Amino acid sequence: MRQGPIEPVKNVRPSNRADFTTGPQQLTAPAGTPPLKVYALGGLEEIGRNCTVFECGEDIVIVDIGLMFPEEGMPGIDYIIPNITTFRGREKNIRGVIVTHGHMDHIGGIPLTISRLGFPTIFTAPLTAGIIRKRQEEFGNLNNLKVQLINAESKVQLGKHFLFEPFHVNHNISDAFGAALHTPYGTILITGDFKFDFSPVNDEPADLTHIAMFGAKGTLALMSDSTNAESPGHQISEKTVSEEMERIFQGHKGRLIIGTFSSLLTRVQQIIWLCEKYGKRLMIEGRSMNANVELAHSMGYMHIKPGTIVQEGEFGRIPDEKLVVVCTGAQGEKNAVLMRIANNEHRHLRVQPGDGLVFSSSVIPGNERTVQSLKDALVRQGAKIYHYKNLDVHAGGHAKQEDLKLMMRLTKPKYLIPIHGNRFLLEAHAELGEEAGIPRANIFVADNGQIMEWTNEGGKLTREKVPVDYVMVDGLGVGDVSEVVLRDRVALAEDGIFVVIATIDKKTGALVGSPDIISRGFVYMRENKELIERSRAFIKKLLKDNDPRSGAFEDHLKNKIRNDVGQFLFRATERRPMVLPVIIEV
Amino acid sequence: MRQGPIEPVKNVRPSNRADFTTGPQQLTAPAGTPPLKVYALGGLEEIGRNCTVFECGEDIVIVDIGLMFPEEGMPGIDYIIPNITTFRGREKNIRGVIVTHGHMDHIGGIPLTISRLGFPTIFTAPLTAGIIRKRQEEFGNLNNLKVQLINAESKVQLGKHFLFEPFHVNHNISDAFGAALHTPYGTILITGDFKFDFSPVNDEPADLTHIAMFGAKGTLALMSDSTNAESPGHQISEKTVSEEMERIFQGHKGRLIIGTFSSLLTRVQQIIWLCEKYGKRLMIEGRSMNANVELAHSMGYMHIKPGTIVQEGEFGRIPDEKLVVVCTGAQGEKNAVLMRIANNEHRHLRVQPGDGLVFSSSVIPGNERTVQSLKDALVRQGAKIYHYKNLDVHAGGHAKQEDLKLMMRLTKPKYLIPIHGNRFLLEAHAELGEEAGIPRANIFVADNGQIMEWTNEGGKLTREKVPVDYVMVDGLGVGDVSEVVLRDRVALAEDGIFVVIATIDKKTGALVGSPDIISRGFVYMRENKELIERSRAFIKKLLKDNDPRSGAFEDHLKNKIRNDVGQFLFRATERRPMVLPVIIEV
Repeated sequence: MRQGPIEPVKNVRPSNRADFTTGPQQLTAPAGTPPLKVYALGGLEEIGRNCTVFECGEDIVIVDIGLMFPEEGMPGIDYIIPNITTFRGREKNIRGVIVTHGHMDHIGGIPLTISRLGFPTIFTAPLTAGIIRKRQEEFGNLNNLKVQLINAESKVQLGKHFLFEPFHVNHNISDAFGAALHTPYGTILITGDFKFDFSPVNDEPADLTHIAMFGAKGTLALMSDSTNAESPGHQISEKTVSEEMERIFQGHKGRLIIGTFSSLLTRVQQIIWLCEKYGKRLMIEGRSMNANVELAHSMGYMHIKPGTIVQEGEFGRIPDEKLVVVCTGAQGEKNAVLMRIANNEHRHLRVQPGDGLVFSSSVIPGNERTVQSLKDALVRQGAKIYHYKNLDVHAGGHAKQEDLKLMMRLTKPKYLIPIHGNRFLLEAHAELGEEAGIPRANIFVADNGQIMEWTNEGGKLTREKVPVDYVMVDGLGVGDVSEVVLRDRVALAEDGIFVVIATIDKKTGALVGSPDIISRGFVYMRENKELIERSRAFIKKLLKDNDPRSGAFEDHLKNKIRNDVGQFLFRATERRPMVLPVIIEV
Repeated sequence: MRQGPIEPVKNVRPSNRADFTTGPQQLTAPAGTPPLKVYALGGLEEIGRNCTVFECGEDIVIVDIGLMFPEEGMPGIDYIIPNITTFRGREKNIRGVIVTHGHMDHIGGIPLTISRLGFPTIFTAPLTAGIIRKRQEEFGNLNNLKVQLINAESKVQLGKHFLFEPFHVNHNISDAFGAALHTPYGTILITGDFKFDFSPVNDEPADLTHIAMFGAKGTLALMSDSTNAESPGHQISEKTVSEEMERIFQGHKGRLIIGTFSSLLTRVQQIIWLCEKYGKRLMIEGRSMNANVELAHSMGYMHIKPGTIVQEGEFGRIPDEKLVVVCTGAQGEKNAVLMRIANNEHRHLRVQPGDGLVFSSSVIPGNERTVQSLKDALVRQGAKIYHYKNLDVHAGGHAKQEDLKLMMRLTKPKYLIPIHGNRFLLEAHAELGEEAGIPRANIFVADNGQIMEWTNEGGKLTREKVPVDYVMVDGLGVGDVSEVVLRDRVALAEDGIFVVIATIDKKTGALVGSPDIISRGFVYMRENKELIERSRAFIKKLLKDNDPRSGAFEDHLKNKIRNDVGQFLFRATERRPMVLPVIIEV
């Protein structure tokens, strides 16, 4: 985040930091002050869907509204967003939504929730604001979006009980900040995603002085990023990546194709600088990456000399040793550029022997096998792979164990609340907290939705919970895919479906003609005619003795088909397709 | 593998090594010798399904018949085995199946192929033989199995053209060996899975002298394990694991629960020794692990003092600080012990605060998310996790880059053929080969099934291929799940199924009554009645104008329903369920 004002900052109250932060770690609030409640609507039991909430009396402040990508066992789901039902009827109390940086796990839920929240003001830094606006365009309602820009010197009063003060941290996107919330009971620091980078790219180093000042004055609680809490040591600097990448630029003879995340703009900047240094031309491939680079460049967050970027139509005329391509898809994402190149589906890029392929990103858990297949396809076409396992071509964006302890030592919180990570990561972070001298009783490892509460008596992790059930987004549907639907999808994927259509005489209950059988995903019907014929005979026999006068005749018949045919098929194949009986009465 | 004879070795011809291996790297075969053909039926484009074949005239030798676990996009598939159609009609020419060690990716295909191969003799070491026999029991036909044991001094003539000589290597199971095949054109070494362990557990160090002798005499080709070809440095010794594990034994106060692979017997042995050293009692949990330990113990491959193992019924009486549990499920396998403990489904083990959980295995690509959830569940119940990321509690079984180069420097092959790994791993191994001085033209990175051929003119990678299509095993079906079935399963998983049942008047083509709609895995029908009603109205309209006299009336109608209803649903939901039209004519 930049130092100094970069554009007029509106509605910002002058600092009254002294009122709130001088004194001991926990302040004594004036009599009658309501308790402070803190909880997360996401990000405590997972990576993603980050959303943290602060309530004091009638004031509500939200920090981040992210999305999460689906877990295993959720086929067809696009993503998951925080459940905001807890705010129903209290939307007018939301004093602001603070957004710490522009990555999807912190902003992705905004377009799908902000209108239902009544368009509260979003407080964020300029680049993040640009990315939020750009995404909102795709969802409509852009004109209703209220965004107020903040900078390194902002202090914003939010309702009666909160004063928000951002502090600059590093991450692998510019303009990341942590949020200090001064409350009647003391100051709570929310780091957001962070690392300390003493030689960052296109960014200032994290504002250690500012952070240390919080510690000097005493902080109530630190809510800190746990993503890398299991990784020993310090996170490496983007600068180190640059040095490794430079060695590849120097050593590799042919074209270079570099895959990374479309949001990893600091990485793209480094590649641009290296291209300029080594007289190479850069082609940026991928809709989202182009859009992000354009946005960041137009806002002054990226520095590109004229002539560096390859223009439309120039492509064929650039010699191989002069061409560098940076693109999306290093995670093996379907339809991303790298996948299209590997599958010969890209409109003009084909891998050729001599190409160097750099995977400049870590592999997100769950994507490993897809990335392996991607690498296989590229290597098969003659590419040489440079991977972060071999070389330091990826610096993560998250603080590792020693960085996390540094943050604690600097801020000296009374309470530690690990956030952003699976439960085992939060626990690993809690252990680091103990190592850094925070008593275990003051470390709250909470569930999503579990309320932490402060009064003048101190803080506690209550047993109270707000609803945090998954809200799954699938196509146009938000929250309409239930557990039942998911269970069916998983079952269908395992062994397919077997539809039995029986036409029954309404009066006699007798089967009319032969039952129809349709199956998908079970066995290949053309090659298993004998099994189908045996099934048909079995069903005929099953339907022989029916009494249509019995109550719930149809239900009874369906259950019978479902159970008996299911067992018949299992004995024959040891598979359990979903059996769907259809009874037509004529 | 043990030195010296351990039981009578039958049908083994005395060594005629001198006839084959003295001289240059490529020998000149007598005039009229047929060409030597080498190809893999699996293991060159994947991890798993290892199976390598050598043919010379009428002699066929197979090395390993493994299985592979399914890739993404293969829901419901249990595993994949090598395709053996290339042997059809030539089964009598198979002179032997050499099995290098007892892991599933090397033995798993045997029970499903060996009868179709006409029960050729299996040549392997005693522990491997025990494991193969044990598995065959589950599939029947055990009495037909022909197994001949070999040891470190065996030499076995296989047909006219091959002499097989095993050499001892290390892996994370005892009795692993590599196979030297002396052929008319020179000696080919197949390493199998290997590492060099200078301080192994329950095993001798790899027989470096033996291996070096091959190099001294000159080898034609080295076929070497590529699993860890991307990992720099040397693989660590099992001894190092022991030291780290000992530190956990010393430092941890409560119970210890250690998850690993059921086949990782050297690890279990170390845990037994540590229990004995520190006066703890060991409980072995998991059917496969118990069976393996029992087998290895009965064969003298494991050393257990009386009283170390907890007996049935003793469990409740052992104090926490004295109890160690070793179990399966460190990969998050469904129904394995660790998963059952985490889900409170184990018959008597529950996690309690103070438990230490050690994940003593690497995470197989694809299992990361499941392992994360498993760790979350365990931590939530109060366990402390010790993981190989934090501590060296796992030593892999595979040679890393420097080990691979050591193997090349020792054996000095004329040709290098990287095996066992994805394409990108084979390429990484090929690069190491160049670094170790093997000319690129003599390094064959082949596809599965692609034939490498040697004559007196030298070796070449031909364009000829034998069939290697996946043979998928699903329940009782071997090879009956086709691409079509898999594609349907994947589609069903994404957006479910939408069945439209229309009853049509045979004569007029008019719709009778209202169409029935059944859907699964698409939307929750109870909560989406309005969408279902709109769909029904749409279908009614669609079916209004039909001409039953036109040819292929029913097909036409079905296609129309499939396309138009599909589009209608996509517009309404942006989902694409499989639309299954059923026309009943009355």
